[in-house]
Amino acid sequence: MSIKPGDYDVPEIYRHWPGDTAEDAIGPFFFRMEGEHPRSAFRARQQHCNAHGSVHGGILMTLADYTLCLGANGGEQQYVATVSCNNEFIAPAQQGDLILGQGEVLRRGKSLVFVRCDLRVDEQIIVSSSAVIKLLRS
Amino acid sequence: MSIKPGDYDVPEIYRHWPGDTAEDAIGPFFFRMEGEHPRSAFRARQQHCNAHGSVHGGILMTLADYTLCLGANGGEQQYVATVSCNNEFIAPAQQGDLILGQGEVLRRGKSLVFVRCDLRVDEQIIVSSSAVIKLLRS
Amino acid sequence: MSIKPGDYDVPEIYRHWPGDTAEDAIGPFFFRMEGEHPRSAFRARQQHCNAHGSVHGGILMTLADYTLCLGANGGEQQYVATVSCNNEFIAPAQQGDLILGQGEVLRRGKSLVFVRCDLRVDEQIIVSSSAVIKLLRS
Amino acid sequence: MSIKPGDYDVPEIYRHWPGDTAEDAIGPFFFRMEGEHPRSAFRARQQHCNAHGSVHGGILMTLADYTLCLGANGGEQQYVATVSCNNEFIAPAQQGDLILGQGEVLRRGKSLVFVRCDLRVDEQIIVSSSAVIKLLRS
Repeated sequence: MSIKPGDYDVPEIYRHWPGDTAEDAIGPFFFRMEGEHPRSAFRARQQHCNAHGSVHGGILMTLADYTLCLGANGGEQQYVATVSCNNEFIAPAQQGDLILGQGEVLRRGKSLVFVRCDLRVDEQIIVSSSAVIKLLRS
Repeated sequence: MSIKPGDYDVPEIYRHWPGDTAEDAIGPFFFRMEGEHPRSAFRARQQHCNAHGSVHGGILMTLADYTLCLGANGGEQQYVATVSCNNEFIAPAQQGDLILGQGEVLRRGKSLVFVRCDLRVDEQIIVSSSAVIKLLRS
Repeated sequence: MSIKPGDYDVPEIYRHWPGDTAEDAIGPFFFRMEGEHPRSAFRARQQHCNAHGSVHGGILMTLADYTLCLGANGGEQQYVATVSCNNEFIAPAQQGDLILGQGEVLRRGKSLVFVRCDLRVDEQIIVSSSAVIKLLRS
Repeated sequence: MSIKPGDYDVPEIYRHWPGDTAEDAIGPFFFRMEGEHPRSAFRARQQHCNAHGSVHGGILMTLADYTLCLGANGGEQQYVATVSCNNEFIAPAQQGDLILGQGEVLRRGKSLVFVRCDLRVDEQIIVSSSAVIKLLRS
C-alpha cells in the first residue's frame, strides 16, 4: 500500500519515503531532493495538535529529524542515526497548516554529517534545527 | 474515555495526562511527580519503531519534551511552550522496551523554566535532553 | 584607547564594540551590520590555539555568541543575555585564519530573539550556532 | 613555568592541564578527576567580565567545554575534539566567584563520547551543558 501526498493535501511534487512505520504513524511526511538538499512537507491534522490547539512540538521535532536525516542519506537507502539534534521553537503552527522543511547539508564527513534545517508555514520560520548524524553501514 | 497505564504494560504508579491528542496518538505517555521533578514512562510498540528496528528518534524527542514540560508545569494545568530543546541520542531503544524518563528542574524563573531529563532503558541512559520552557498565562 | 581592526589584520570595514573587557581579552572581535543581520570578523593568533594547533572551541563559541548577541541587539547599546546557545564544530580553524561570522535573526519577539549564525574560513563553514537571547531593560 | 591554583585563589586540590595556551589565556582553568568524572574550577577576575558586570558567556562555555573534554579524555593525554556543544545559561556569575564544574560521562563509545556538565557558584547551577566529543588518534 502506498502513501500518496495528494491524500494528505500535500503537493504531488513530494514523495513518500517507504519503510518507516513510525514516521507514517506520526505524519505521514513527504520529501523531495534539490540536489543534496532535502525538502519536506507535512499537512497538520487534528491528531497532531496539542492542548494549546497548535501542532505538538514533538511532531515538529520528528519532521525536523526526518528532514535532517534525508540530508544525511541524500534521499537514498543509506541507514543513518541521529547523534544530536537541537531545536528552537520560533513560532507555532496550527491545524491545517502545510509545514515545509528545507535542509542544508553543511558537511558530509566519512562517518558524520552536519545538517541544519528550518520548518516554515507560509514562508515564516517556525522551527530551526540542526543535527549531527552518523552514517551506518548498510 | 480514560487511557490506563496497565493497558500499555506500564506500571500503575504512573498516570495519564489528559487532553493532549497528539501525545496520545504518538505514545501514549504516562507520568508521576516526585516533588517538583517529573518521572515518565512509555512502552515502545511496533508502530514506534523505524526502519532500523529501533524506536524512532522523533518519538524519543517527543517523550523527552513531554517529560521536560511536566517539569515546567509541575504536573499541573499550567500551559507551557517549549522554546528550545536539545537532545543527544546515546543508545538505541528497541520494540518492547519500557522507557523511563526522569526530569530535573534546574531553575524556575518568572517566565522561563530550565529543565533537563534523561530517558533510560534498564537503567542505561539512551537519550539526554535539556530545554528552555516558557510559562504561558492560562 | 581604541581597538582598531587594522592592528589585528582584520579588514577596516569592521568595527570594534566598546566596553566588553572579556571580549577584548579573548579576541578582539570586530563587526558590522548588514541591515539587522550581523557580520563579525576575527584573526586567530597563537594565543587562541589549543594543543592540537587549531583554534580553541571555546574561542569559536565566544565569537559565535558575540555574533548572535549583535543579531539580538542590532549593533545598538541594548543589553542582552544569552539564554541558550548550541554549537556544532564542523571543521577546524588554524592559527592565522581570518574567521568571518554571519548571523541571521530568525525572529525578534518582545523579550526573546532567535538568532543563528555560522563562522567561516575561506567560505567554508567551520561552526554552526544558534541561540535564544533575552532582551534586558537598559 | 607552571600555573598553580593557589595563585588564582582556587583550592589546591585542583591541578593545571598543561599545554593549552588558549585555555591559559582565557582562564586559567583547573581540574581533578573523581573516577572517570571531571571536576573543574575557575576564579572569575575582572578581565572575564562583560559589560553587564557578569562573567562573559563565552568564558563559561569555554570552561564547560574544558570540563566536558576532560570527561572524554579521562584527564589523560588523549586528544579529543568537540563535535557539538549545547549550553543553557541559567543564572549569572559575578567577578570574584569561584565557579566549579562537574561533568558526567554518559557513554564512552569507540569514537564518540557523550558528556554533560554543569557549572555552579555556591552550589547553585549557573550553566548546564552537554556535548558529543570525538576521540582522536594520538
